[in-house]
Amino acid sequence: MARWEPGADGRLREAALTLFLERGYEETTVAEIAQRAGVTARTYFRHFADKREVLFSGAEGVRAGMAEAMAGAPADATPVAVAGLALDAAAEAIGHRRDFYRQRQVVVEANVELQERELMKLAGLADVLAAGLRERDVPDPEARLVAEAAITVLRVGFHRWVASAHDTVDLGVTLREVLGELVGLRG
Amino acid sequence: MARWEPGADGRLREAALTLFLERGYEETTVAEIAQRAGVTARTYFRHFADKREVLFSGAEGVRAGMAEAMAGAPADATPVAVAGLALDAAAEAIGHRRDFYRQRQVVVEANVELQERELMKLAGLADVLAAGLRERDVPDPEARLVAEAAITVLRVGFHRWVASAHDTVDLGVTLREVLGELVGLRG
Repeated sequence: MARWEPGADGRLREAALTLFLERGYEETTVAEIAQRAGVTARTYFRHFADKREVLFSGAEGVRAGMAEAMAGAPADATPVAVAGLALDAAAEAIGHRRDFYRQRQVVVEANVELQERELMKLAGLADVLAAGLRERDVPDPEARLVAEAAITVLRVGFHRWVASAHDTVDLGVTLREVLGELVGLRG
Repeated sequence: MARWEPGADGRLREAALTLFLERGYEETTVAEIAQRAGVTARTYFRHFADKREVLFSGAEGVRAGMAEAMAGAPADATPVAVAGLALDAAAEAIGHRRDFYRQRQVVVEANVELQERELMKLAGLADVLAAGLRERDVPDPEARLVAEAAITVLRVGFHRWVASAHDTVDLGVTLREVLGELVGLRG
């Protein structure tokens, strides 16, 4: 498996995913992940709060990218257009790691705890989006609705992307497609 | 607090909510809930799989109502119209218990485990909706998108409903409003 970044946190993510796929998530300990990555368990906990978190560190990059994209969106952008730029940023943050996310998906789908953590991360991203829209003077309830709709797009598009049989599928393009489909829904 | 249904399961829900509000979710044991409801812990576990589940039994009625509404929808109903009927059924199943859900919301918002369970229940309802749409020959990816969009409506509308200062607010009306707003979103 290719290393997707240098440093202990990247090695820990790689080691964790490999062990989770080989043995199962529940059967793997933090000590084993750390050992495989060549670091101590203490180093693990400097990077990740618990065993689950090693699979969710991408959320921080997505969160930061989304916040920055929203803050930098043109003043006259509609709420949906701002959400679209935030989704572009999400794709930018994680879209180059499709192999990682495809394998990670196998692990997540086999474990309820991991599914719960994933849903909580997505809920946290919805809060970031809603806050970013409110800062742009989009009032509630519109800010909340657009934020939740954008997270629905992220969720649906992400699953479509990892499930695709085509290695060339692009996350950013996929998210824009799903956003277009959502906005195009008619009663 | 009014009893909202007869039988042990209703008494257990009432007892659990009262104790969670008084002492906190984490500080309350299943044994204490059972004692307050006048039953044994064994009876508790005949009704609910774990301590969390006592707050989520409404999901079963929602699930059943949604499935029935979708199966009974007119043959020429659009996917969004079918989802709308499913949302009406969800409102029918839980909308008469606003006091319960308002108090329950205080407990859920104070505890991450409960938030996780709630998100998992909603994800399960999305699967029910997607399956119901597929049975009506709505293909994926449309079935999945409409199902997830409808659950976004349920999530946003439910929060708007429990947060409303007006006791007369109707869950069914609120869900229809939010669905209209979602379908009305423009890029």
